[in-house]
Amino acid sequence: MENQLPLMIGFVVMSLSSLALYVYGDKRREFRHHTQFHAMVPFIAATAYLAMWLGTGVIEGVGEATLYLPRYADWATTTPILLTGLILTGLHEHPRHSTYILPAIVLDVLMIATGLLASLATSEFVKWVWYAWSCAAFAGVLYILWVPVRRIGENLGGGIERVYRGNLAFLTVVWLIYPVAYLVGPEGTRLLSNTASLWLILALDITAKVIYGFVATKRFKQLPVSEDRAAITV
Amino acid sequence: MENQLPLMIGFVVMSLSSLALYVYGDKRREFRHHTQFHAMVPFIAATAYLAMWLGTGVIEGVGEATLYLPRYADWATTTPILLTGLILTGLHEHPRHSTYILPAIVLDVLMIATGLLASLATSEFVKWVWYAWSCAAFAGVLYILWVPVRRIGENLGGGIERVYRGNLAFLTVVWLIYPVAYLVGPEGTRLLSNTASLWLILALDITAKVIYGFVATKRFKQLPVSEDRAAITV
Amino acid sequence: MENQLPLMIGFVVMSLSSLALYVYGDKRREFRHHTQFHAMVPFIAATAYLAMWLGTGVIEGVGEATLYLPRYADWATTTPILLTGLILTGLHEHPRHSTYILPAIVLDVLMIATGLLASLATSEFVKWVWYAWSCAAFAGVLYILWVPVRRIGENLGGGIERVYRGNLAFLTVVWLIYPVAYLVGPEGTRLLSNTASLWLILALDITAKVIYGFVATKRFKQLPVSEDRAAITV
Repeated sequence: MENQLPLMIGFVVMSLSSLALYVYGDKRREFRHHTQFHAMVPFIAATAYLAMWLGTGVIEGVGEATLYLPRYADWATTTPILLTGLILTGLHEHPRHSTYILPAIVLDVLMIATGLLASLATSEFVKWVWYAWSCAAFAGVLYILWVPVRRIGENLGGGIERVYRGNLAFLTVVWLIYPVAYLVGPEGTRLLSNTASLWLILALDITAKVIYGFVATKRFKQLPVSEDRAAITV
Repeated sequence: MENQLPLMIGFVVMSLSSLALYVYGDKRREFRHHTQFHAMVPFIAATAYLAMWLGTGVIEGVGEATLYLPRYADWATTTPILLTGLILTGLHEHPRHSTYILPAIVLDVLMIATGLLASLATSEFVKWVWYAWSCAAFAGVLYILWVPVRRIGENLGGGIERVYRGNLAFLTVVWLIYPVAYLVGPEGTRLLSNTASLWLILALDITAKVIYGFVATKRFKQLPVSEDRAAITV
Repeated sequence: MENQLPLMIGFVVMSLSSLALYVYGDKRREFRHHTQFHAMVPFIAATAYLAMWLGTGVIEGVGEATLYLPRYADWATTTPILLTGLILTGLHEHPRHSTYILPAIVLDVLMIATGLLASLATSEFVKWVWYAWSCAAFAGVLYILWVPVRRIGENLGGGIERVYRGNLAFLTVVWLIYPVAYLVGPEGTRLLSNTASLWLILALDITAKVIYGFVATKRFKQLPVSEDRAAITV
């Protein structure tokens, strides 16, 4: 079963990374929720990889592709957590601005849900309509992150603004590769085989969840607890 | 396909209204989350109408009726957003009182979910038990809006209290028509055909999401940013 | 139908308890959200028991057992509400510490979801892997409640800390019996018949939702509204 190996690797890497990110993460009161976010995300992904390895929610023969439902449950819950952490950073945790989190999550979950509908579609027309609508929702997420949230963050300034811009650039690049992976994968133009696609998505998942988690944590640990920030976060 | 026309109109109206409400909405820091709410709601509805137009989640022959699953996914996510905006208004955004939002959403989602169970039921007895339970949950939502939240809002007073009472009356009337539409529609007494029911629900959805959005936005734009309110919303 | 009796009793007890807990609960501004939590939980459970009594979502012949899907919908929504109330108590409602609620809910929902996967599994190996993973998530929930949240609560001290420790001990003991009930029930070693298992889970549900609700409410009503706590909860 050549397809089982990347799924088992995904389970092991995600489980251990969840523990490692919790241990390594910042424990200071002002930053520990980011540690919680970065430990939760690979724990959810580990559960999804375990399901795919066990064959739970794996549906053969949707067209010529295999449909992995646990991926969508994973993405629909982990991407809102990652977005919440990112937007809180961009807004310096300022409660007055936190309303941007909800529209970003709504668009993000619509992006994942319509991506699933594209995978489930039995007609080419329906598939590409859903693919296009999913990309439109993704464009909305990127708009929120790059325009209003970035503008507010720049006005507030400081070291945390540099953390935001670094994390934003990292996540934007990695997330942009997912729709490309769909395009070239077994559900799209079939340039990649099912097995090659499994390895590619494993690499993307580890980058977007584990490597991103360690990079973001390292940046937070270098930040001082400034007085005004502590006051804001009450 | 006489049933396709109202669904395509729904998609077009909801998509354009989402953009229009975002552009028209209040951008002041104290009110912009309401703009976000009113733009999100028709975007979600547009996705549901697109799904129904494409036939995604449309199940023929549940009894003599056609079941449109995307409606329930739409309602289960848009009504909590509308309730949140309405209750925040009633409570003058006062964080101390915001706990009323959760019970209202729980009752509201149970109302939608048991409404779906009524539509899925294969026996008349089961259908009308779920219909009655759904109405009981709706009564609970109306109780929260009209009794405790309205009382708190009246104690706080001011111009925002007039916005609350206007929005509350509008939403109450429109939402009360939905269970009546179910009663006379193809899943109930069949006074209305499937096609007539599609047009009626389209009119209700546009009233409850788009017209309500513009009316509420117009009321917010006439409010001044009072000092005490700005202090409260931190 | 010997299995219908415990389900109807569950519906009646949960419905009446929801009203009773709302009437009996503390109405003071500082505590009324706990009253809302304890009234919502049996209302959701009443809906689930009504569904099971009507046969909605009841699947015969998963292995030799009957699968009751409404239980999992109930547990996946009521346990996060109970955890939120418990953790808010442990943290003295201090917003700065409220970030512990999200990881507890994520682990809790994974515990319920993988418990459902264990019940749905058609192979013994898959069943017990999911059972073990569900227990691992439960261990994570207990860790959060007993280690970081309890430590923060002890530092803050006061009468509410005694409420937390009492509620924590109660819920921990009752919740620990659920995985044991699964082990000895029709989906596990079949020491208990399907009917006996229904009665056992009914007793557990009433204990964890209704009795716990009254006990917790009584403890809250004995607390004074201290000045500092009122200030914190703004």
